[in-house]
Amino acid sequence: MRRVAQSILIIGSGLIGTSIGMAMSRAGAKVYLVDRDPAVAARAEQLGGGHAALPSNDPDVVIVAVPPRDVADVAAAALRDWPSSTVTDVCSVKGVPMRALSATGADMTRWVGGHPMAGREVTGPEGARRELFNDRVWVVAPSDSASAERIAAVTHIAVTCGATPVQMSADDHDRAVALTSHVPQVLSSVLAGRVGAASADHVQVSGQGLRDMTRIAASDPELWTEILSANPGPVRQVLEGLIIDLERVRDALAADAPDALRDMLERGNEGRAAIPGKHGGESTEYDIVPVLIADEPGALSEVFVAAGGAGFNLEDVRIDHVLGRPSGLVEVSVRVGLGDDLAAALRERGFDVRY
Amino acid sequence: MRRVAQSILIIGSGLIGTSIGMAMSRAGAKVYLVDRDPAVAARAEQLGGGHAALPSNDPDVVIVAVPPRDVADVAAAALRDWPSSTVTDVCSVKGVPMRALSATGADMTRWVGGHPMAGREVTGPEGARRELFNDRVWVVAPSDSASAERIAAVTHIAVTCGATPVQMSADDHDRAVALTSHVPQVLSSVLAGRVGAASADHVQVSGQGLRDMTRIAASDPELWTEILSANPGPVRQVLEGLIIDLERVRDALAADAPDALRDMLERGNEGRAAIPGKHGGESTEYDIVPVLIADEPGALSEVFVAAGGAGFNLEDVRIDHVLGRPSGLVEVSVRVGLGDDLAAALRERGFDVRY
Repeated sequence: MRRVAQSILIIGSGLIGTSIGMAMSRAGAKVYLVDRDPAVAARAEQLGGGHAALPSNDPDVVIVAVPPRDVADVAAAALRDWPSSTVTDVCSVKGVPMRALSATGADMTRWVGGHPMAGREVTGPEGARRELFNDRVWVVAPSDSASAERIAAVTHIAVTCGATPVQMSADDHDRAVALTSHVPQVLSSVLAGRVGAASADHVQVSGQGLRDMTRIAASDPELWTEILSANPGPVRQVLEGLIIDLERVRDALAADAPDALRDMLERGNEGRAAIPGKHGGESTEYDIVPVLIADEPGALSEVFVAAGGAGFNLEDVRIDHVLGRPSGLVEVSVRVGLGDDLAAALRERGFDVRY
Repeated sequence: MRRVAQSILIIGSGLIGTSIGMAMSRAGAKVYLVDRDPAVAARAEQLGGGHAALPSNDPDVVIVAVPPRDVADVAAAALRDWPSSTVTDVCSVKGVPMRALSATGADMTRWVGGHPMAGREVTGPEGARRELFNDRVWVVAPSDSASAERIAAVTHIAVTCGATPVQMSADDHDRAVALTSHVPQVLSSVLAGRVGAASADHVQVSGQGLRDMTRIAASDPELWTEILSANPGPVRQVLEGLIIDLERVRDALAADAPDALRDMLERGNEGRAAIPGKHGGESTEYDIVPVLIADEPGALSEVFVAAGGAGFNLEDVRIDHVLGRPSGLVEVSVRVGLGDDLAAALRERGFDVRY
């Protein structure tokens, strides 16, 4: 077996499958794509995801990119159909499908589970892009019997797609995502559910914090029912801990015990600081320069033209938007230390800079 | 008394006080500012917040813009010192300070509490800006004995600052913010606290959802200890409901009851859809056009120049940033229905549009 995958077969050409196909095709791999719906596979091919056909020989790696409930069956078939191929998946839970696969009697020495931590609000090949995995974590969760070569083949796909591979056991992965992904989804959904049950008068009094806390409450209920159902033990364990924390807050409020509240809030500060940026490293801070602009076409552009013309590379842009139009304020970010220079350059060009 | 405030005194020239001073000064009101720290008041004056001095006559309205624990005392002094002035505040809880004020024997006919729903991550007059309240809700919570003229004077300040005034009782306000602000803060903090206590390996496996859910966990523990302590009853009541919801999820996972999970997730969808945009109306959706750009100075600007040149007013801009630099993808938003036209215009100008 070649250490580096030169031919891959992607089963399921939705958002994730097609995005992998795009990235691997561009890197020079021979990519085959199939989908339950041939029209979807054809669309993925049009978009540059690979060839909408089965390979004539065993591919180096088969990537199972189907919904969680179908992973074990499709992976079992793939291990049977391509008897020398390494088989991986992209499912956001790892333990339940791996055990179901193992129970089919499949050859687990060729199974190396995967979970690229990337996604978009959209689905289907139309939303795919080859940069989807850039600097994202891609968990590689091999079976106990998978060889180093099999693991390396899947790790190499993650790297080729621009991701940062992180190897851990399926159970470790599931405990981690219970905390960092599945329970946050539950919290967001139950909070939004309570908001939906409140009077419109009360809901009117809401700010950015609530919008942040309920953004993922808009997620697909069908997909998340599957995900939560496939990771019941770890999610319950994390929920138990959070329920205890919330009961402590409730009791501290009843007992007028501000120290307990302060402790809880300070631990929150520390925990927030420990959460990495996208690639798994430190979060990056910028100098943020606020600029007031007129509400007219081209006003935004003028800021960017001026910044670019003065040699600044903007790292981020944030616009307060209200009532379906941008407010007068644009916040442009540059590397730490460059804020003063950018502010001076924009002022010199006549902008109302509030830095 | 004049219905419209022509002279106002702001006690406490931090972020909120100075921002109100800026907006009211610009609207032509005579604004006086004081602060416990005269240097802070002087700085607020420099920034255009008003005159750092006490007025010689009763101002029309006194705005108490001090930390929650000081509101009742400072307001009692203001009602005594300025015997004809209407007095308001900007505190994020309304019931506890109002009852404390009433207990001092203050003249409650002149008390009209206020809560502008705006803020920034920064504090102090340096962070102030006169647009801070644009299209934000500003709750006006008068005492039972306040006259229509007193209420109108405070409402007018909210409108002059660009906010949308919403009148409700102090208790209604506190029940509303318990759900929409205080409990979300608790959820974010306890979640982040659990993340902080987890192993670094596990925390590495985190995505945008966790970052959204823990953003407000970075809030000031001292301020939030005060806020939560000042609204114990309503916060406890909302927490009780959420604990029940979380116990139901835990039990549904234990019982392998996917229907209960799906119900919870669907209610979350509905609740999320009910949360208004900044001004209290419907949330606005845009057509979002993704454009791939080179990672070099000026590349961002070119997109905006092209869009502006083609006559499009961009409503929002979102840049995926990784490792301290923008990734190749910029998402620009235009009004719904204009996405196709913008995509075509950008393609015509040679951009790699992924719409």
